[in-house]
Amino acid sequence: MQTLEKTEPKLQELKTRLIEIKDIESAAAVLYWDQATYMPPGGAAARGRQMATLKQIAHEKFTDRAIGELLENLRSYEESLPYDSDEASLIRVTRRLYDRAVQIPAQFMAKFSLHRAQSYGAWAKAKPENNFAAVQPYLEKTLEFCQEYANFFPGYEHIADPLIDGVDYGMKAASLRSLFAQLRQELVPIVEAITSQTLADDSCLHQHFPEAEQIAFSHKVIEKIGYDLHRGRQDKTLHPFMTSFSIGDVRITTRVYENHLGQALFSAIHETGHAMYEQGVNIEFEGTPLADGTSSGVHESQSRLWENLVGRSRGFWEYFYPQLQEFFPTQLSNVSLESFYRAINKVERSLIRTDSDEVTYNLHVMIRFDLELAMLEGKLAVKDLPEAWNDRYKSDLGIVPPNHSQGVMQDVHWYTGMIGGMFQCYTLGNIMSAQFFAAALKTHPEITTQIQQGNCNTLLNWLQENIYYHGSKYTTAELIQRVTGSSLSIEPFISYLRNKYGEIYAL
Amino acid sequence: MQTLEKTEPKLQELKTRLIEIKDIESAAAVLYWDQATYMPPGGAAARGRQMATLKQIAHEKFTDRAIGELLENLRSYEESLPYDSDEASLIRVTRRLYDRAVQIPAQFMAKFSLHRAQSYGAWAKAKPENNFAAVQPYLEKTLEFCQEYANFFPGYEHIADPLIDGVDYGMKAASLRSLFAQLRQELVPIVEAITSQTLADDSCLHQHFPEAEQIAFSHKVIEKIGYDLHRGRQDKTLHPFMTSFSIGDVRITTRVYENHLGQALFSAIHETGHAMYEQGVNIEFEGTPLADGTSSGVHESQSRLWENLVGRSRGFWEYFYPQLQEFFPTQLSNVSLESFYRAINKVERSLIRTDSDEVTYNLHVMIRFDLELAMLEGKLAVKDLPEAWNDRYKSDLGIVPPNHSQGVMQDVHWYTGMIGGMFQCYTLGNIMSAQFFAAALKTHPEITTQIQQGNCNTLLNWLQENIYYHGSKYTTAELIQRVTGSSLSIEPFISYLRNKYGEIYAL
Repeated sequence: MQTLEKTEPKLQELKTRLIEIKDIESAAAVLYWDQATYMPPGGAAARGRQMATLKQIAHEKFTDRAIGELLENLRSYEESLPYDSDEASLIRVTRRLYDRAVQIPAQFMAKFSLHRAQSYGAWAKAKPENNFAAVQPYLEKTLEFCQEYANFFPGYEHIADPLIDGVDYGMKAASLRSLFAQLRQELVPIVEAITSQTLADDSCLHQHFPEAEQIAFSHKVIEKIGYDLHRGRQDKTLHPFMTSFSIGDVRITTRVYENHLGQALFSAIHETGHAMYEQGVNIEFEGTPLADGTSSGVHESQSRLWENLVGRSRGFWEYFYPQLQEFFPTQLSNVSLESFYRAINKVERSLIRTDSDEVTYNLHVMIRFDLELAMLEGKLAVKDLPEAWNDRYKSDLGIVPPNHSQGVMQDVHWYTGMIGGMFQCYTLGNIMSAQFFAAALKTHPEITTQIQQGNCNTLLNWLQENIYYHGSKYTTAELIQRVTGSSLSIEPFISYLRNKYGEIYAL
Repeated sequence: MQTLEKTEPKLQELKTRLIEIKDIESAAAVLYWDQATYMPPGGAAARGRQMATLKQIAHEKFTDRAIGELLENLRSYEESLPYDSDEASLIRVTRRLYDRAVQIPAQFMAKFSLHRAQSYGAWAKAKPENNFAAVQPYLEKTLEFCQEYANFFPGYEHIADPLIDGVDYGMKAASLRSLFAQLRQELVPIVEAITSQTLADDSCLHQHFPEAEQIAFSHKVIEKIGYDLHRGRQDKTLHPFMTSFSIGDVRITTRVYENHLGQALFSAIHETGHAMYEQGVNIEFEGTPLADGTSSGVHESQSRLWENLVGRSRGFWEYFYPQLQEFFPTQLSNVSLESFYRAINKVERSLIRTDSDEVTYNLHVMIRFDLELAMLEGKLAVKDLPEAWNDRYKSDLGIVPPNHSQGVMQDVHWYTGMIGGMFQCYTLGNIMSAQFFAAALKTHPEITTQIQQGNCNTLLNWLQENIYYHGSKYTTAELIQRVTGSSLSIEPFISYLRNKYGEIYAL
C-alpha cells in the first residue's frame, strides 16, 4: 500500500497531462476531418496553420521534461504491477512513445512538418499533369529529411527500421523482406494461374449507380455489420479515411463514383473495420495513448478483414445481394449473385494499388516497399524512381503505366513527406487479417453461417474482446501470440486465397 | 527608422504569439460548430473536455507575462504612430484585452468555466419541465461568480460595468439605463397605438413549408444579399449561430420549423449579417484580436440591419416575394405581397423575445437588463426572479407567461453562467442598425431602389468600407462617430419605426 499511496498521484498527474495532449491531438483531427468534408475553399490557408499550431503544442507538451520525470518516478511502481495490468501498460507504452519523441529535435519537426505540407501541395498540383519533374525536388528533400530522421535513432540495423518502428513497432526491414519474399513465392503462381484464364466480367459494377442510393446502401451495410452510429458517422470526401476524436466519436468518410459500385461500398466497409477497432477500445483508456490501435498493420488487418474476408465473401452477399438488387433493380435484377460475386472478386494485373484485388494487391505493396528501402539505402536516386517503378510494374505485374499519375505518382504517401515505413502495413494487414479470422473461426465455426444470415455479432464480439478492447496495450507481436497462439504467419492468408480463388477459378 | 528597427521585431513576436492563440481559439470554435451540427451523441463527453482544454491553453498563453512585457516594450513605438494606424491599433486593442484578462485569476476562470457548463446542462434538462427550482441553486452560484468577477475590477461605478465592458467596451450601466429610458418613452405609445388595433393576420406563415425548400430558399437569399459562400456555409442546428474560424471561413447555422416560414428565413438573414461583418474584415488583421467585430452591440447592429431594415422591408420583398411564391406555390400563390409584408411585420404583445417583432423587442430586452442589474446589486434574490419576471411582463407587455419555459427560463444567457452584460447588446444593436442604415442612405439614397431590384451591393460595400473592414480597430463609440458623424442616438431608430409602422398601421 505504501508504494500505491506514493506513486498513484504521479500516475494521475501523468494521465492528466496525457489527456490534455490527446485533447489537442483530437482537436487537430476534427480540424482535418472538417477540412476534408465541409470546409469552404476559403478556409484552407488558415486551416493549415491552425492544424500545425495544434500539432506543435501537442508535441511540445508530450516532450516536456516533466513527462520524462513522471515516467522515471513511476518505474518501480510499474515493475511492481503485472505486465498486462492497465496501469503498467499505460506507463510502458507512454515511455516507449516518449523515448521515441524526445529523440527528434523540435526544430527538425517544425521544418519537416512545413516541408511535408509543401510537398503535398506540389503533388496535388503536379499529379493531374503527370509532372514528376515538379515533385522531384520535394521528394529529394523528403528523402534527406527521412534519412536525417532515421539517424536520430543510431544503432539501427537498417536505415528504414526507425521509420517502420514508428508505425509498426517491433517490425524491421530485414524480417519484413524475408516475410514478403515467402509471400511472393506463394503469390506469383496463384496470380499466373488466374491471369492465364479469361478475365472475369465486372461490367455489372460499371453501370450508373446514383450517389444517394450508394450512400444509403453502404450506410445500411455498415450499420448492420456493427458500426455504432450513435458513436460515429459517415460523410462524403475525396480520399476516404477513418478518424477518431474519442472512443465515443469515431467517424468514416466515403467517396462515391457513380459509374463504379464497388468504390463507395467496399471503401465504406474498409473504413468501418478501422472504426470498429477504435470504437471497441476499453473506455478506461479514453484520452490516453492506450486508446489507439496498436499499429498500422493491426489496424489494416481489421479494415481488410471486414472489407475482404467478410465483405467480399459469398456468404455475406447471400444475405445482402437481394437487398442490393432492391436498391438498384434496373441495374442488377438480371445479374445473378454468382456473377456479382465473381465481379467483386475479379483478379487482374492492374496499375492502381487501391483498386487492385486481394490476390495481386500485395505485389503492388512490395514494389513500393522495395523502392523506398532502396531510396533510403542510397541505392536508388529520386530522379531514377519513375524508371525503377515502371521496370518493376513490368516485371512483377506485366504492365507499364501509361503515365505517372497512374504510376509513380498514384499514392500520396511519399509525397506527403515520408519515405520509409509507409507501405509495409498494407501487406502486414492482409496477412494478419487472415490469421485473426482463422483464429475466430476456430473458436466459433458458426461465424460462417451467421454471416450468411447477415449476422456478424459473434465475429465482432470475438474481435472486440480479443483485439479492439486492448487498444495499444499489447504490441503487434504480443497481440498475435495472445490471439492466435502463434507468431505472425503467412499460412492462413495463403490458405484463404487458395480456397477462395481456387474455387472461383477452378485451380 | 531607429525606433522601427528596434521595435518591429517585438511587434512581429507579439503577432506570432497572438496568431497562435487565435489558432487555438479557432480550433475550439470548430469543435463547438461540429458539436452543434454533425457530432454524433456519443462524442459529447469528450467534446466538452476538449473545448475546455483548448480554452484553458489559449487563456494561459494570452495571459503569459511575456505578452505583457512585449506590450510594455511596444508602448513608445505605439505612441510614435498615428492612433488609427493598423499597428498602433493592434497594440492598443491587445493591451486593453490583456489588461482585462490578467485581472482574472486562472483558478477562478477554471472554476467558473466548469460551473457554466454544469449550469447549462441543468437548464437544458429543467427547461422542458418548467422546473425553476432545479436551476435556482446554479443561478445563485452564477450570481456569486459574476459578483466576484466584477470585483476583480475595483473602482467601477456600477457592479455590472465590468461585465458590460467585456462585451460592449465603453458602455456603462448608468448611461445604458438613461438611453433605455428615453427609448421606452418613445416606444410605449407606439406599442399602445398599434396593439389597440386588430392583430395582423400571419396565418400565411404558419402553413406547412417543407424543410428542404426552406433551406434552399434561404440559401438563395443569403447568397444574393452578399454572403460569400466560397468563404462560408450554412448548416442545420438547434440554436442558430454564426461562427468564424478565419476571415476565409465564416459559417452560419439555421433551424427550420416546417410550420413557421419566418423562423429559418429571418434567422438565416440575421446570422448572415453577423457573417458578412466577419467576412469583411481587413485580411491584414487575420489571426489577431483586430479580426473580430468590435463589440456585441455593433455585431448585433449588423444582424438586425440585414434581418429587419433590409429583410423585413417592403422593397426587399418586391424583389424576393415572386421567387418565394415559386418555391411554395400551393402555400403562397393566393397570398398577396401586401398580406405577406404585414404578416412578417405583425406587432403583438408576446412572450418570447427571439420571436418578437421590431417594435416590442426592446421591451423584452429592457426587462432582462433591469432584472440582471437588480440581481447584481443584491436587490433581487434569485429565488424571487420568476415572480419579478412575471410582474414585469404583466406591467410592460400586458401578458403573463403560462409557464417558466416561456418565461424566466426562455433565454439561455443567464443559465450559461453569466448574469450581467448579457442583454444590452440587443437593444444597442437595434438602435445602431437604424443609425448606420440612415447614414448609408444619406450617402447613397439609391440603396432603397436598388434593394427593390434585389441589389444590395451598394449597401454592402458601404458597410464593408465603413464598418466591417475595420474589425475591432475602433471602439463602438469611435466607430459610430466616424460613420455617422454623431454619437449614439435613438432618433434614427424611432424615426424608422414611426415611418414603417405608421404606414402599415395608419398611425
